[in-house]
Amino acid sequence: MTTTIIRTAAGWWVERDEIAVPITTSATTTGELLADRAAIDAAATAEAGTTQVADLDLLSPITTPCRVVAQMVNYASHARDSNIDPSRVQATFFRKASGSVVGPYDDIVKPAHVRLLDYEVEIGLVAGGELTVGSTVTADDLGDVIAGVVITNDVSARDVQLPKTQFYESKSYPTFTPIGPRLVLLDHEEWRRFDQLRLQLWVNGERRQDGHVGGDMIVDPVSALRVLAGFQRLAPGDVLLTGTPGGTALSAPPKPIEMIGALLPPHVKWKQFFSRQASNPKYLHDGDVVEVRIATDDGSIDLGRQRCTVRYA
Amino acid sequence: MTTTIIRTAAGWWVERDEIAVPITTSATTTGELLADRAAIDAAATAEAGTTQVADLDLLSPITTPCRVVAQMVNYASHARDSNIDPSRVQATFFRKASGSVVGPYDDIVKPAHVRLLDYEVEIGLVAGGELTVGSTVTADDLGDVIAGVVITNDVSARDVQLPKTQFYESKSYPTFTPIGPRLVLLDHEEWRRFDQLRLQLWVNGERRQDGHVGGDMIVDPVSALRVLAGFQRLAPGDVLLTGTPGGTALSAPPKPIEMIGALLPPHVKWKQFFSRQASNPKYLHDGDVVEVRIATDDGSIDLGRQRCTVRYA
Repeated sequence: MTTTIIRTAAGWWVERDEIAVPITTSATTTGELLADRAAIDAAATAEAGTTQVADLDLLSPITTPCRVVAQMVNYASHARDSNIDPSRVQATFFRKASGSVVGPYDDIVKPAHVRLLDYEVEIGLVAGGELTVGSTVTADDLGDVIAGVVITNDVSARDVQLPKTQFYESKSYPTFTPIGPRLVLLDHEEWRRFDQLRLQLWVNGERRQDGHVGGDMIVDPVSALRVLAGFQRLAPGDVLLTGTPGGTALSAPPKPIEMIGALLPPHVKWKQFFSRQASNPKYLHDGDVVEVRIATDDGSIDLGRQRCTVRYA
Repeated sequence: MTTTIIRTAAGWWVERDEIAVPITTSATTTGELLADRAAIDAAATAEAGTTQVADLDLLSPITTPCRVVAQMVNYASHARDSNIDPSRVQATFFRKASGSVVGPYDDIVKPAHVRLLDYEVEIGLVAGGELTVGSTVTADDLGDVIAGVVITNDVSARDVQLPKTQFYESKSYPTFTPIGPRLVLLDHEEWRRFDQLRLQLWVNGERRQDGHVGGDMIVDPVSALRVLAGFQRLAPGDVLLTGTPGGTALSAPPKPIEMIGALLPPHVKWKQFFSRQASNPKYLHDGDVVEVRIATDDGSIDLGRQRCTVRYA
């Protein structure tokens, strides 16, 4: 059975059947907590008490600062949305500032200059060990590097992201990475069910994204970590976002229009593109409620449900 | 007069007229050193002693881990090399892993899978204070955030960088950010001479890059930090690379060829591009010596001379 960790201002808890059991630890960071496995295991087997999870104000189970690394296009369904041939996708990474991390029920705040605010449900892999540069990663030792998984929303300012081409700024504004509520630790057997995880995202109750990892994710975690280990160390508490399935507000223009656009100077091309996108109602508006859920259909791995409200600065 | 800091395995020194004066400090990181300004100033005014800088094995004056943030295309001459209209360039940032930092005389090691290894001389701005997200930066308080400047080489694997579009991996391999030898601290008056800095890079004695900041740099440090402060905190010891002037090995295809290329599927376009680049002799070869110098022409600000040898893994 998975071990589920949640966090409040008071500290760390193991969640068991809607009851929160405090973890007795001096850890102040997620990395330190994951090093104190004995304390986690003690809470997982201790008498449960009566603290209802529903009564707690939950924070991101990932503390900051930490490294937040993210994969570019990594689901075939999202690649098709973006007019990219999935068979040509390579493992590609960018960074997000960890100052963008907020809790699972916090507001997503749109900076005043951003016009096209978009969502991306993603599984976050949470490092529990060291990924050293030059190391190799196999399916058998994935669990030595990655302790577990969290819900993340890779919030994106499309009108900044696309003309600037580098994704770093557009995905790093404060509140642009809601994480949680749960950090679910997976053992060796549970990692085999990773493909069965289903990612869903709703805006004001309307389902926008809904897809399973299996058959859609292009670069699996082991392959991604192999490439990452060529240049980026990870330490306990760092997070790798693994891409989003189809259904974001952004969708690329049809191929013939894109090919004509390629001949225009970039500023003209983007002006036309954003003028078309301005009439796309799927971008996030002030007051929109974004709900996200990641779990296996049988509920044996359940990352909980995230619920954030969009606020325009 | 500027204050010049160098570093060896034994610790920190102030360099004065080719003599190294030890700094008495408990600082182990660049951030800690910059907070101990009294110790730096004491070494800057102490009796000089007889330790010749030339006899020391110098390390990067920037310790890691730290944030290494870099600006994309930021000199008009490099924009023109890349077929980009300089008047359309926006302040655009990406991250480099600080595991890529090496000393000023270390080898640059090409990973076996990389084919097109390129160089980029850049001025590195070194944070001495905090840049907080949401803060504003003016010319008057630039010195409160940025303590000084270093030579950096933003080594780039072009055949990874361009097809992946995100620059993070291609510029983050170990040894891909030689820094130093000097960290030169600038006071308010000295910052006014920033535009007079001249960046030069030679390969095996052949000058490849040579340009002044003034009249060529597009987004100046104050403007860059204003945009960066919208999403990324900086702490003392972090580094911002500010872009490279023209003259890299990479140059874009002429406009008509580029426009035809835009109509091809990406993998076909890149295959053609790299096949043309394979015959470009300017990419770095095994044993090449890359020398870099940044200074004002009158020598009043002098970041020293970096000398790295290229090794093929």
